[in-house]
Amino acid sequence: MTVEAAVAQLKKGGMIAIYDGDEREGEADLIFHASFARPDSIETLRRDAGGLICLALDGDVAKKLDLPFYTDILAASNHPVSRMECKKTAYGDKPAFAIPINYKGVYTGITDNDRALTIRIMAELIESDSKDMQERFVNDFYSPGHIFLLIGRGIENRKGHTELTLELARKAKMKGVMVLCEMLGSGKALSRKDVKEYVKRNKLVFLEGKDLWQK
Amino acid sequence: MTVEAAVAQLKKGGMIAIYDGDEREGEADLIFHASFARPDSIETLRRDAGGLICLALDGDVAKKLDLPFYTDILAASNHPVSRMECKKTAYGDKPAFAIPINYKGVYTGITDNDRALTIRIMAELIESDSKDMQERFVNDFYSPGHIFLLIGRGIENRKGHTELTLELARKAKMKGVMVLCEMLGSGKALSRKDVKEYVKRNKLVFLEGKDLWQK
Repeated sequence: MTVEAAVAQLKKGGMIAIYDGDEREGEADLIFHASFARPDSIETLRRDAGGLICLALDGDVAKKLDLPFYTDILAASNHPVSRMECKKTAYGDKPAFAIPINYKGVYTGITDNDRALTIRIMAELIESDSKDMQERFVNDFYSPGHIFLLIGRGIENRKGHTELTLELARKAKMKGVMVLCEMLGSGKALSRKDVKEYVKRNKLVFLEGKDLWQK
Repeated sequence: MTVEAAVAQLKKGGMIAIYDGDEREGEADLIFHASFARPDSIETLRRDAGGLICLALDGDVAKKLDLPFYTDILAASNHPVSRMECKKTAYGDKPAFAIPINYKGVYTGITDNDRALTIRIMAELIESDSKDMQERFVNDFYSPGHIFLLIGRGIENRKGHTELTLELARKAKMKGVMVLCEMLGSGKALSRKDVKEYVKRNKLVFLEGKDLWQK
């Protein structure tokens, strides 16, 4: 029932708060499908959520773009700082970060207008599923930028916000390209209770990680 | 006079808004010295400024840490995405980004507590100016993380927020390790007028880029 409500919300371009679980990060991300990104939704993320605004891509999409994990780039560089590679975070997973990008048509890249633009052009590229996708990706975007690409490892392998968010897109039969941002409270992650209150106040949908992977 | 007020503000741990100029990004960053980073100051940056929370390091500090620019890592990786390297932004400069890090003692890395911790431990490391600085940097932090390191190219070479901020630290005779975050308004960068009002309301100091480099 909750998942159905979340799927309906996703399809109409609305936001959903996904709480991963007390045993993992104990954190909710505010998410929506990238094709609906507009300056005002980016503004909502930065004002109400407060974390890093990221764009999660399905593993098969990343493959088509020839998009590596950030750690692959760091390791391949053979620079002394490649020893700093994060193999496992405090909550037990490998990081989901790929590279940070901007669309070449932006100015600084960080404004609501610019972040919405980078995300929407990426969504259009991925939804086109064209043969020259990789070529267009490399030509139309640059790195470093202000949109942090993430790559999903599949819900069966990792149960982070990246995978949970992409699993919801899969259930909604939408392309795996999703915007997400951590919901923060004073000092710590926004509490489960405060997340639920925010969701209620703004008529959004609240979802728990296990709703998406528990049989 | 303004610069003197900014130096005094910096020394007591206060925030300063630096507006780069209409001819460049047309944007103000909210800044303070990294040694004063606390969870509540990080919360102020994410709530009131809204951009990316970064940590700018002087070129000579970066050298001691053997810290490369992100673009150096990307190029050295020889991965197909290295063709995406940003050589020049829309406002004419090379990007200042180095690598993103977290202190190994954090949990997720993104909360106010975690970001303040990463920044403060970095400030302590840099202020120690110890011989094993590079070793401690590589051992105590991991990448990717949630604090975006920037490297200053010197005010004579680049007049971005990174260099302006570090120039102010230099004038205050403080170590070149500074926290900064872009001030955003709806859609666009926060206007010069709104920045000045925010500064007045919160008893901060407003500085223009040219105050720091014009003779």
